[in-house]
Amino acid sequence: MAGDTIITVVGNLTADPELRYTQNGLAVANFTIASTPRIFDRQANEWKDGDPLFLRCSVWRECAEHVASSLVKGSRVIVQGRLKMRRYETESGEKRTSTELEVEEIGPSLRYATAQLTRTSGQGKGQISGTASVGQKEQQRGWYQPDQQPSSDQPAEPSQQAWGGGGNDFDEPPF
Amino acid sequence: MAGDTIITVVGNLTADPELRYTQNGLAVANFTIASTPRIFDRQANEWKDGDPLFLRCSVWRECAEHVASSLVKGSRVIVQGRLKMRRYETESGEKRTSTELEVEEIGPSLRYATAQLTRTSGQGKGQISGTASVGQKEQQRGWYQPDQQPSSDQPAEPSQQAWGGGGNDFDEPPF
Amino acid sequence: MAGDTIITVVGNLTADPELRYTQNGLAVANFTIASTPRIFDRQANEWKDGDPLFLRCSVWRECAEHVASSLVKGSRVIVQGRLKMRRYETESGEKRTSTELEVEEIGPSLRYATAQLTRTSGQGKGQISGTASVGQKEQQRGWYQPDQQPSSDQPAEPSQQAWGGGGNDFDEPPF
Amino acid sequence: MAGDTIITVVGNLTADPELRYTQNGLAVANFTIASTPRIFDRQANEWKDGDPLFLRCSVWRECAEHVASSLVKGSRVIVQGRLKMRRYETESGEKRTSTELEVEEIGPSLRYATAQLTRTSGQGKGQISGTASVGQKEQQRGWYQPDQQPSSDQPAEPSQQAWGGGGNDFDEPPF
Repeated sequence: MAGDTIITVVGNLTADPELRYTQNGLAVANFTIASTPRIFDRQANEWKDGDPLFLRCSVWRECAEHVASSLVKGSRVIVQGRLKMRRYETESGEKRTSTELEVEEIGPSLRYATAQLTRTSGQGKGQISGTASVGQKEQQRGWYQPDQQPSSDQPAEPSQQAWGGGGNDFDEPPF
Repeated sequence: MAGDTIITVVGNLTADPELRYTQNGLAVANFTIASTPRIFDRQANEWKDGDPLFLRCSVWRECAEHVASSLVKGSRVIVQGRLKMRRYETESGEKRTSTELEVEEIGPSLRYATAQLTRTSGQGKGQISGTASVGQKEQQRGWYQPDQQPSSDQPAEPSQQAWGGGGNDFDEPPF
Repeated sequence: MAGDTIITVVGNLTADPELRYTQNGLAVANFTIASTPRIFDRQANEWKDGDPLFLRCSVWRECAEHVASSLVKGSRVIVQGRLKMRRYETESGEKRTSTELEVEEIGPSLRYATAQLTRTSGQGKGQISGTASVGQKEQQRGWYQPDQQPSSDQPAEPSQQAWGGGGNDFDEPPF
Repeated sequence: MAGDTIITVVGNLTADPELRYTQNGLAVANFTIASTPRIFDRQANEWKDGDPLFLRCSVWRECAEHVASSLVKGSRVIVQGRLKMRRYETESGEKRTSTELEVEEIGPSLRYATAQLTRTSGQGKGQISGTASVGQKEQQRGWYQPDQQPSSDQPAEPSQQAWGGGGNDFDEPPF
């Protein structure tokens, strides 16, 4: 794809993510992010909260399951995705549109939290590791999986070599 | 601040983060992200890895400690920050510049991993919670801390009310 | 301000911009951008248009007047601004929200057009230069005006030195 | 392509763009943008200029020619593109890298200037319209050309229907 409006939002989940499965067994999680800007009040000489932006988000496949098992109401996240317009009809038959985010990448913010990561295989659809604690850095190493093209119309065949794909032979950059 | 060049990068840590402290006791973590684009080869009809972009990053305060205790070499992250030019001198006295990222927000990607989050107080500088597993979703709830203005020249006094700051009274958005 | 959701959109104006003035004499222009992604159809082995994203935009002060005098229906633009939620009431009294863009910076795309620029003073509110052709590059030189903080709660006092503010003593960067 | 680090920069050209042609007759323009953030000094209670970010940019094809004929030293622009690392060798044989921007979309900012646009055909490589003044809004109407995929490994075949491609039958969005 090209020409998508790709944006990044930082905010907090307004509720636990809702995980569902399509008839084809594809996982999808929905949630809403509230992003609250901070405004500097020169009279009061202090920062205040501005009006929050609420953005409905959807995320697919393994990542949907990871979101559902990792995040809860209130979690602060950083999200990148495509801004999309969704057309829908109200119960009274009125046609409307809403602006939503099709998530491409999401992570819990490390600003006010630490994270203990558990690598998933990244291969099997629907398969996730348990959230049981791993607790050993070694086991988290080298778990990079090459990028998958997220859009269903452009399924990527991720290569296995780029960064070692399981090894920990990350080279230092040339500087 | 205004007019900063704020960018988002998704990639993998090329090494474990390096955590240091300034003489004033301020934590700073440095690391390098490798971001590898995927290119569609029309001849071969498949996706291939493009040239990686390496970007040196720095992150400050509690977030630096959280990065150091949560991320390792190979971790896939989503990072937002300000693109900055750093001037430095080589050992031979030559003046050079490099383009680096002053991280504002960072999170481990949930694309190929799950995360178990532990909320920190977000108050005391340098203070972090243990990384000991919590394992109960309830304890992770409602841990939102209002945004802190990261730049040292604009210290924010985060309000405590916006989203409940500890409670779990997140309202649903009005739609 | 901090923590705003700042996004960039590339698209085309769906109609001529509408210029109005507030009771205080402040100019505001409204327009809608249609941003159409391109999707690669692997079966057909060609690029096709995806669903357009429509985004309502507002821009203030001199820039509003510049938009109104420079852009028309169909103009391709690149826009950066803050994503905001606007609350409004329908004629039947129903409360709704829409997601809109508060423009901070906008320019006509040079992809399919050339532009002949006319510098405005950048000082007086509401004052713009005529759109009469200038036609001499010399007159366009060095017309940089230091950044004005766009948000009304943070009026900037633009310095006059940074880049010469009218002179053309732009230094080459150190590389 | 996917996974590129796409960023937006607002700043001023430090010199006139340099236009060259490859042996294949492909146009390329190079220039450097200086982006200067504004910092609020709470002691002085005023805004000051921060350290500028300099970013070397390259732009290709018709757009390169449009840049060369439309922009000059000092022009304020808004630019979107891919952040790339360029490897090069110094005269003494030392290997270095620099971070540069491969421009995808660029426009002169309308913050301190108005623009008189002249539509180009958008079809013929290397062909541009004259910069002679047009002066009639009607002639600028409906000049939208569907998006071209910029990367040479993914040449797009732009459709001609999406937005009328020459007509001015832009529909109003559905709200």
